[in-house]
Amino acid sequence: MSLEQDRKAIRDAVVLWAKATAERDLATAMNLMTDDVVFLTPGNLPMMREAFRTDFENMIRNVTVKAKPDVQGLDITVDGDVAMSWGRLEVEIEPKSGGPAKMAQGHTLSAFRRGADGQWRIFRDANLLSAFKG
Amino acid sequence: MSLEQDRKAIRDAVVLWAKATAERDLATAMNLMTDDVVFLTPGNLPMMREAFRTDFENMIRNVTVKAKPDVQGLDITVDGDVAMSWGRLEVEIEPKSGGPAKMAQGHTLSAFRRGADGQWRIFRDANLLSAFKG
Repeated sequence: MSLEQDRKAIRDAVVLWAKATAERDLATAMNLMTDDVVFLTPGNLPMMREAFRTDFENMIRNVTVKAKPDVQGLDITVDGDVAMSWGRLEVEIEPKSGGPAKMAQGHTLSAFRRGADGQWRIFRDANLLSAFKG
Repeated sequence: MSLEQDRKAIRDAVVLWAKATAERDLATAMNLMTDDVVFLTPGNLPMMREAFRTDFENMIRNVTVKAKPDVQGLDITVDGDVAMSWGRLEVEIEPKSGGPAKMAQGHTLSAFRRGADGQWRIFRDANLLSAFKG
């Protein structure tokens, strides 16, 4: 694969991740993470794969999450089967019970790993979005 | 180099970084970053190499920064000449003018790149430390 093909594959994974989140599609989200994935956020403990599953299941019961990554603006570097990306992300969280949506924006830093099947998967992720504003 | 040797070299770089920060040693800090380094923090714009230099120069005029990374607890993965690390960090910021120190704690996610000289240098860094508490 050329660098441009790898970058496109990673942008596609980011788009698919956002779509899976909005559509409450846990299986697709889980397939976009490695087994040893770690998610870091300010003020929270590191979250691994099974905690992500629980968190996602709780989330989709209560809210709809529209993630709007700046996919074209993503900075992507690829070294063999490891890639890094960083870029802007906006998130809108709508309570299912009604009421105002919450917004957040900021940057993410992610590391991806290419699996034996060729699919790029998130294995490290830092979400630096600033506190939600109603 | 074995994986353990690489991990030790990265822990050594993290220790050296903290020492350089406490000792206002800009040259050492600059030598631990790649030319294309990017630092991400919540609520701020991405900071590249020259902005880091300016920020560091301002910082050392006003405060002493004691960074206390949990070096032994760092999770380090190495793939060729790229490595990822994540772990806990505590920071204490003392105003030179006196007054109470500010504390912050949380996690960092960093990517390192091995240079032609064998030195590991930070090339991506997300600092997720929670808002300073006095």
